[in-house]
Amino acid sequence: MAQKIRVTVWSEFRHEKRSPEIAKIYPEGIHGAIAAGLKTDPRFEVRTATLDEPEHGLTQKALADTDVLTWWGHMAHDEVKDEIITRVQQRIIEGMGLIVLHSGHYSKMFKRMMGTSCALRWREANEKERLWVVEPGHPIVDGLPPYFELPREEMYGERFDIPNPDAVVFIGWFAGGNVFRSGCTFTRGKGRIFYFQPGHETYPIYFDANVRKVIANAARWAAPGDGPVMKLGDSEPPLEKL
Amino acid sequence: MAQKIRVTVWSEFRHEKRSPEIAKIYPEGIHGAIAAGLKTDPRFEVRTATLDEPEHGLTQKALADTDVLTWWGHMAHDEVKDEIITRVQQRIIEGMGLIVLHSGHYSKMFKRMMGTSCALRWREANEKERLWVVEPGHPIVDGLPPYFELPREEMYGERFDIPNPDAVVFIGWFAGGNVFRSGCTFTRGKGRIFYFQPGHETYPIYFDANVRKVIANAARWAAPGDGPVMKLGDSEPPLEKL
Amino acid sequence: MAQKIRVTVWSEFRHEKRSPEIAKIYPEGIHGAIAAGLKTDPRFEVRTATLDEPEHGLTQKALADTDVLTWWGHMAHDEVKDEIITRVQQRIIEGMGLIVLHSGHYSKMFKRMMGTSCALRWREANEKERLWVVEPGHPIVDGLPPYFELPREEMYGERFDIPNPDAVVFIGWFAGGNVFRSGCTFTRGKGRIFYFQPGHETYPIYFDANVRKVIANAARWAAPGDGPVMKLGDSEPPLEKL
Amino acid sequence: MAQKIRVTVWSEFRHEKRSPEIAKIYPEGIHGAIAAGLKTDPRFEVRTATLDEPEHGLTQKALADTDVLTWWGHMAHDEVKDEIITRVQQRIIEGMGLIVLHSGHYSKMFKRMMGTSCALRWREANEKERLWVVEPGHPIVDGLPPYFELPREEMYGERFDIPNPDAVVFIGWFAGGNVFRSGCTFTRGKGRIFYFQPGHETYPIYFDANVRKVIANAARWAAPGDGPVMKLGDSEPPLEKL
Repeated sequence: MAQKIRVTVWSEFRHEKRSPEIAKIYPEGIHGAIAAGLKTDPRFEVRTATLDEPEHGLTQKALADTDVLTWWGHMAHDEVKDEIITRVQQRIIEGMGLIVLHSGHYSKMFKRMMGTSCALRWREANEKERLWVVEPGHPIVDGLPPYFELPREEMYGERFDIPNPDAVVFIGWFAGGNVFRSGCTFTRGKGRIFYFQPGHETYPIYFDANVRKVIANAARWAAPGDGPVMKLGDSEPPLEKL
Repeated sequence: MAQKIRVTVWSEFRHEKRSPEIAKIYPEGIHGAIAAGLKTDPRFEVRTATLDEPEHGLTQKALADTDVLTWWGHMAHDEVKDEIITRVQQRIIEGMGLIVLHSGHYSKMFKRMMGTSCALRWREANEKERLWVVEPGHPIVDGLPPYFELPREEMYGERFDIPNPDAVVFIGWFAGGNVFRSGCTFTRGKGRIFYFQPGHETYPIYFDANVRKVIANAARWAAPGDGPVMKLGDSEPPLEKL
Repeated sequence: MAQKIRVTVWSEFRHEKRSPEIAKIYPEGIHGAIAAGLKTDPRFEVRTATLDEPEHGLTQKALADTDVLTWWGHMAHDEVKDEIITRVQQRIIEGMGLIVLHSGHYSKMFKRMMGTSCALRWREANEKERLWVVEPGHPIVDGLPPYFELPREEMYGERFDIPNPDAVVFIGWFAGGNVFRSGCTFTRGKGRIFYFQPGHETYPIYFDANVRKVIANAARWAAPGDGPVMKLGDSEPPLEKL
Repeated sequence: MAQKIRVTVWSEFRHEKRSPEIAKIYPEGIHGAIAAGLKTDPRFEVRTATLDEPEHGLTQKALADTDVLTWWGHMAHDEVKDEIITRVQQRIIEGMGLIVLHSGHYSKMFKRMMGTSCALRWREANEKERLWVVEPGHPIVDGLPPYFELPREEMYGERFDIPNPDAVVFIGWFAGGNVFRSGCTFTRGKGRIFYFQPGHETYPIYFDANVRKVIANAARWAAPGDGPVMKLGDSEPPLEKL
């Protein structure tokens, strides 16, 4: 049997503790809902980690045992320690996949990997988003229809200040008049990165069947392969006679 | 003084001859309106060419004297001769710029350069399009606001079957619920290509100030440079001793 | 058990019939050697097809039963019928993978998908090529070392007139002083395309273990997924009230 | 007359002060040689700045007056203050161009913009580099031949751990058997970035005519345009009735 893909679902887990409304939507936390979705697929071995655990739950050991990390954060981006960001970045460069969700666009983690401000337009107005598949041949859209809808979502709109993605997989249409590159892939080092827009904390979006399918597809796509380990940094002799 | 950029505005020029309504919108033809916009800028030297001229107005001489070619076609794509398409393709590979407008997405010319079907979703329903600037650092959006609107346009929607563009410059929002990569750049050979969505024949879109600015910016951006001429195809000796 | 990936290995099969030297290197044909490499992997179901079969062995039925097509041609590019090229192009757009090998760079098939001349520098001088892995996180380099060598190969050198690839996976170093993007990926429609430089007919390159590994990895990578089927081309009603 | 492009040539200026051999090659400093090359072109207004000046010579005022910044550093990367890196990053996102030269690949500045390790293979062996033009239509290669040579250069080789560039403009061939993406473009925010490999401190490379032409072309290409200023970050009202 093929080896399982080890996914660590990370979340700051604060809104759910402070707001009864959000706790009602996500009684097991946002990470709990994302993990529950992934656990229905036997190819994954799923753990969770949260901000207030020691080392944010992202110890060297935890990361060494992680193939793909998902990241949800919002109100406490600044509390994430820089040394943990550096540690995760190193693992991504070595090949660990990263899935950044919704407000994670403004996390230290995503900014570190992108090199840009990652700013965007936004609005909380309970409006409809329709996500259009732009790259129907991409593994991340396996099993999806040509588009799907979220009846209520926070608006995220262009200009989204990110580097040109490897692939724009989804473009979102918002009822209030905006558009957004709602699903984008990047490569950094050996690591594959997917940014996915849905997931405002006041809506039960991580229970949505299409959203769950996308996250599961992305976790499979982002799992590291078996490419060469590059020893870089030391001087090396010529391969041809000089 | 810097040399002028020689732009040839090509159009099939059929709708305007057959439909009084369209002739009223474009009394000088669609090509006439596009050319008039470009002529207000002293950096351009502007000519026009149309389908029913000998060799569609795209003789070897005409192409040799063209830095940037704009292309509008719709009802007569099939009447464009394959040998002319091949001739234009060769010039693009040598460095001539190409700006493909609106229904030109389905022309032999664009399909030849893309290698895909170039199909898309569409609807004629007099609906609003809002074009969002996605790459504010691109020369094609110089002088533009963060977005601009067309009160009535034909809807073109994703999935647009094109190769991944070098840059997605605009994304269009349509009132009927669709999105579109309304401005995209490509490189083929030494030639720079820009696809721009606006321009349905039943609306006076090529008189719109923002649309004209984009086309002028694109013509400057697509003008050929002075890069090396590559002599490829013949066997050549080694540069190092073997 | 997962379904097998159905690979059709296509070759023009002419050099082997006309030159005893080449027939000695490839007694089962170039296609035979490529197919033999793939057959060692139980995930593949492998067939071959050649130029002189009816419809070049690429009937509608054969293509419908193909997940990934590999293409080797050289001296008879012009004999491939345009309608077969169009048929294969349509299948690629629908999702079939395409692996273009060596001199296939100048085939009608590759040119059709690229839109460029696909010309390059070249030389037959029995020189060494060293292929460097540029994207160690790409599935196509699974199980490879940081570089591998071919003791004798035809030189293919830049400028290679292709559109900017999605990924440059290998860059080749040639002893005579040239470099080449020896492994490149593209997406066209739903289809994934890989161009791989090694394979001159006068050397036993398709028996090389690293070359075989790359082709097998590419065949897995290029196999179609289960993304949405896009019905494009017909007018469609709005999704929102206008 | 068109406005001049204001270029600030930044260098750490340490090797030249400590090593008489290097001071002999670059009596005005590496920055002095780069600036001298740019000053021959009347389109540029050129200043220099170095590490040991207050705020490394990169004050808010200096950056506000800079259209394009060139960056050379090597032995003192760690001495560059993080707040200055953050300040420069902000200006790049706003549109300032950045040209990173040679060992600047390992600077905090370049790593910040890339998000990767920017590590590579290397060797000091006085070996020949031949730089091949890969994108002959790119403005950065205007006026260049198909390739040019540096008789002695430090070897930089793949795997170069950078994100997939927007364009690979040059690929370098090294006599010792390595290859390198020696000229690469990126976009970050509104800023255009060019990485260019040549320039080891022990060779007079910034006096080479082709190298100077490339840097001048890059400075023109990287100069900011007049695209829209994006006000991002604050909540905004819908543009359509919800």
